[in-house]
Amino acid sequence: MAEVATSPRRSRITPEREAELYEAVLDLLREVGYDGLTMDAVATRTRSSKATLYRQWGGKAELVARALRHNKPVSAADIDTGSLRGDLLQMVSRQDDCKMEQDQALMRGLFHAIHGNPELHQAMRQLLIEPEITGLNELLRRAVARGEIAADHPALEYVIHMLVGGFVAREIVEERLPDQEFLQRYLKAVVLPALGL
Amino acid sequence: MAEVATSPRRSRITPEREAELYEAVLDLLREVGYDGLTMDAVATRTRSSKATLYRQWGGKAELVARALRHNKPVSAADIDTGSLRGDLLQMVSRQDDCKMEQDQALMRGLFHAIHGNPELHQAMRQLLIEPEITGLNELLRRAVARGEIAADHPALEYVIHMLVGGFVAREIVEERLPDQEFLQRYLKAVVLPALGL
Repeated sequence: MAEVATSPRRSRITPEREAELYEAVLDLLREVGYDGLTMDAVATRTRSSKATLYRQWGGKAELVARALRHNKPVSAADIDTGSLRGDLLQMVSRQDDCKMEQDQALMRGLFHAIHGNPELHQAMRQLLIEPEITGLNELLRRAVARGEIAADHPALEYVIHMLVGGFVAREIVEERLPDQEFLQRYLKAVVLPALGL
Repeated sequence: MAEVATSPRRSRITPEREAELYEAVLDLLREVGYDGLTMDAVATRTRSSKATLYRQWGGKAELVARALRHNKPVSAADIDTGSLRGDLLQMVSRQDDCKMEQDQALMRGLFHAIHGNPELHQAMRQLLIEPEITGLNELLRRAVARGEIAADHPALEYVIHMLVGGFVAREIVEERLPDQEFLQRYLKAVVLPALGL
């Protein structure tokens, strides 16, 4: 399978038009889900031609992954508060709870759509997951460089696993989505102590 | 929605026959997935009547959840090594890696099937998830009673979240399923230090 380019194929569309298009894709995703979303519907909703959509984004999987990336308020790579504790707290405080809940419903639908859809899986991986992992690793690397934590601290390679646990397990245990208050308590009770902070 | 009874409706089938039936259900699940599984196929494969299956298990969701529960080698409620560290290590060492990989593929399929299927969701919750949470809480309660950990230790309520992170995040990060060696390292690097053990 071909690599997905890290930015959309260059063209004459403006950033404003691109943002408008991504918003329309997210609205459609919320309305009909990934499997129900068609390029025809995106073309109609955005008054674009399907040919333009395919030329610009290659296909539905890439278009959807880019729309989701556009929707992220800030990525791990952009966080740099000067301390590891501050960086991690900011990672879980990026959104208001209402938006967070909407986005979690959207993401849950997509993670189910990934099952049995290798094209969507690859696009999500390259455009959403890998940049976040890279950003988090960079943030940890800076903490090591500042001397906040030893380079060989055993919990360092599991920060992402701990965070994933915080994001997904509350629904299993309590049938409630995590909110900011929960994530901050979890960070202080689990992630920071495991890192010795 | 009606509560699911904690044991199958009583009848004259023997435990051997019940085990044989659950094995057949798991084989079918691996072959065709939850959505593809029909009570007709279970009846044919096990030479039962559909009427018997419905009378005994109520329906497909409950039959599948009971088959999965039967497949669990040991539940958290049965673990009691005498120390919290020992109990937690045993929790992640219950299966050989080959069986664990098979079971993870099976469970992943089911967690996707749950999406949009409230009946399966309820059966899985009552017959698989809640007994494990109860068992884990019991194991933690004993550790508190033994004085191994303070009753108000802030990480105590997040043990399950940490464990879920260990089980699900490796695939996101490394595209590999967790094996025993990984889970033990994770436990020692994250869960035990967060609990101050």
